[in-house]
Amino acid sequence: MNQIIARSSRLRATPFTPRVEAAGVKGYSVYNRMLLPTAFESMEADYHHLKSHVQVWDVAVERQVELNGPDATKLMQVLTPRDLSKMQSDQCYYVPIVDEKGKMLNDPVALKHSDTRWWISIADSDLLLWVKGLAVGMELNVDVFEPDVSPLAVQGPKADELMERVFGSEVRDIRFFRKKRLEFANTSFIVARSGYSKQGGFEIYVEGSEHGVYIWDALFEAGADLNVRAGCPNLIERVEGGLLSYGGDMNMSNSPLECGLGKFCNLTGDIDYIGKAALLREAEQGPTKQIRPISIMGEPIRTLQSPWSIIKGNRKVGQITAAVWSPDFNTNVAIGMVDKDHWDPGTEFETYTPDGRRTARIEEKFWN
Amino acid sequence: MNQIIARSSRLRATPFTPRVEAAGVKGYSVYNRMLLPTAFESMEADYHHLKSHVQVWDVAVERQVELNGPDATKLMQVLTPRDLSKMQSDQCYYVPIVDEKGKMLNDPVALKHSDTRWWISIADSDLLLWVKGLAVGMELNVDVFEPDVSPLAVQGPKADELMERVFGSEVRDIRFFRKKRLEFANTSFIVARSGYSKQGGFEIYVEGSEHGVYIWDALFEAGADLNVRAGCPNLIERVEGGLLSYGGDMNMSNSPLECGLGKFCNLTGDIDYIGKAALLREAEQGPTKQIRPISIMGEPIRTLQSPWSIIKGNRKVGQITAAVWSPDFNTNVAIGMVDKDHWDPGTEFETYTPDGRRTARIEEKFWN
Repeated sequence: MNQIIARSSRLRATPFTPRVEAAGVKGYSVYNRMLLPTAFESMEADYHHLKSHVQVWDVAVERQVELNGPDATKLMQVLTPRDLSKMQSDQCYYVPIVDEKGKMLNDPVALKHSDTRWWISIADSDLLLWVKGLAVGMELNVDVFEPDVSPLAVQGPKADELMERVFGSEVRDIRFFRKKRLEFANTSFIVARSGYSKQGGFEIYVEGSEHGVYIWDALFEAGADLNVRAGCPNLIERVEGGLLSYGGDMNMSNSPLECGLGKFCNLTGDIDYIGKAALLREAEQGPTKQIRPISIMGEPIRTLQSPWSIIKGNRKVGQITAAVWSPDFNTNVAIGMVDKDHWDPGTEFETYTPDGRRTARIEEKFWN
Repeated sequence: MNQIIARSSRLRATPFTPRVEAAGVKGYSVYNRMLLPTAFESMEADYHHLKSHVQVWDVAVERQVELNGPDATKLMQVLTPRDLSKMQSDQCYYVPIVDEKGKMLNDPVALKHSDTRWWISIADSDLLLWVKGLAVGMELNVDVFEPDVSPLAVQGPKADELMERVFGSEVRDIRFFRKKRLEFANTSFIVARSGYSKQGGFEIYVEGSEHGVYIWDALFEAGADLNVRAGCPNLIERVEGGLLSYGGDMNMSNSPLECGLGKFCNLTGDIDYIGKAALLREAEQGPTKQIRPISIMGEPIRTLQSPWSIIKGNRKVGQITAAVWSPDFNTNVAIGMVDKDHWDPGTEFETYTPDGRRTARIEEKFWN
């Protein structure tokens, strides 16, 4: 069942792909029509290494949507339910983006450069087209485009040490979800304390594809004694940590309230944004289903390839969207969307996996 | 260099995937976040079979964008430079979609159902988000969504014979790029004479995922003596025929004029659409580069994975975006975007392939 990925010019390589291939990448996914590595040694070996050392991740797939012009901030606030009015120009915000029906179109990170310039660091959908469509339809004075920026993540407990060696001690002062422009060679990059793991670390927004291999090599040269390795977002670690995957755990049929992202939605104030009326209606009753941490009993299961139904009695009451064996927690960890009547912690139900029927249970919280 | 594709719930299977896997699919690409088969026996064996017999293709990746409501036709015409005013409700039109700068966002096929209902059968970009963004921004009275429709293509010289056995003789009367709703079992599907090959055939718009395996099986049962096989868009055949691939041969940095699609653009009449001013400006001077058929001399080359520069003297004057050995034409066939001063048929230049430097030549026309 393991098929080859057919490479073509339609699926873009990244500025780091030559180094990723030299590092022995074992598999790829496709994300925003670019190659996203999924394993180097193996998913489990990568996982243990990530939690103990430091890894460099090619996350160039996190494409940027730039909003540039007098109406940039106006457009940015129309795009998201999150209140941006107090956001500083060194901040990054996780911002759900919803359509006019209050359904999720993406769950990116917004970076504010100034009142007239923003980046949106996107998950897996062509958010550029939504933002451009709105800007054109609303006749706003703003240019919307994808700049030549490729994020490179440095993740793991030794990330601060490695980053200090390359960017200097200033990097340690960057607080969580804050950013700073730091010098590298004859250029400079925006560096943020962020990333798609719970192990701590940074994302370097590499501006200019031509710099890709140089910053990659600099990190590996500086980190040889730190056991630095090529890595990638790790399925086990991200499920343990409850990090959601747009397109997998939620999609255009789900609201941010269903995704547990209500805390990022302005439902009381006078902030105006697309989808607000729909979200207010939903909030009044509360969502009818929601994402939950789920453990699946028994032996290690095969990783999930398409959703597994959650069955209570003879009724489908939800679905599991990510599931994998956790070596550290010694159980199968999972993420699922569960109907209201069955989402309380401790609730047990059945799920049908390729390894047969299993008992599963709603947990109080994610593991990490 | 052949990496495994990592399956996950983020990359959708199609209603036909169980049959595609049973048929022994050898590789996948990812297209609109769905699995697109790329080979069954082998690219060359599939190619010879396609030209002699009949194949069934899982092209569910051609997702539909439905425009439904009083402003559907108004929105549809705003979306494309092509004049839709004379389009009948049994027609399909190839419609370039451009942004406000006159650059290509997709090159789909539009299906008109009525003045208040359209489908856009898309190439590889989230056109849904552009259309929704415009509809919301322009405050149009139209619902825009992705219906549960999965195209299944029947391609090859025996396609008429096979389709007649399943849908009756009516299917033979459907003219090129026309469509008709035909009965199947207890339901009915729109069938169009269209498809991403030059071998002739049809696309069946399978409404309702639950019907997927039944129509697949019906085609295989009816076509056993026709040597029907599972197939997929074939790189060799599509390059021979000059069928373009959005995201590969052209993208958001190219205009339809550069793509040789000027004949689908209304540049004289009073049709109003997004990007018209930009296209009129470009048309005045003519495009500065354009897509051309190119042959590459010498032994069979490896298929292209990322663009190869076209070099004349010491200058880059274009790039090749698809290239593959053609057994029938006994040369390497290619598609490239070439600068104006070098695009005349017969012009020779150098290109750097993974198999070394090669001489290449602009051809008068595509091969098929």
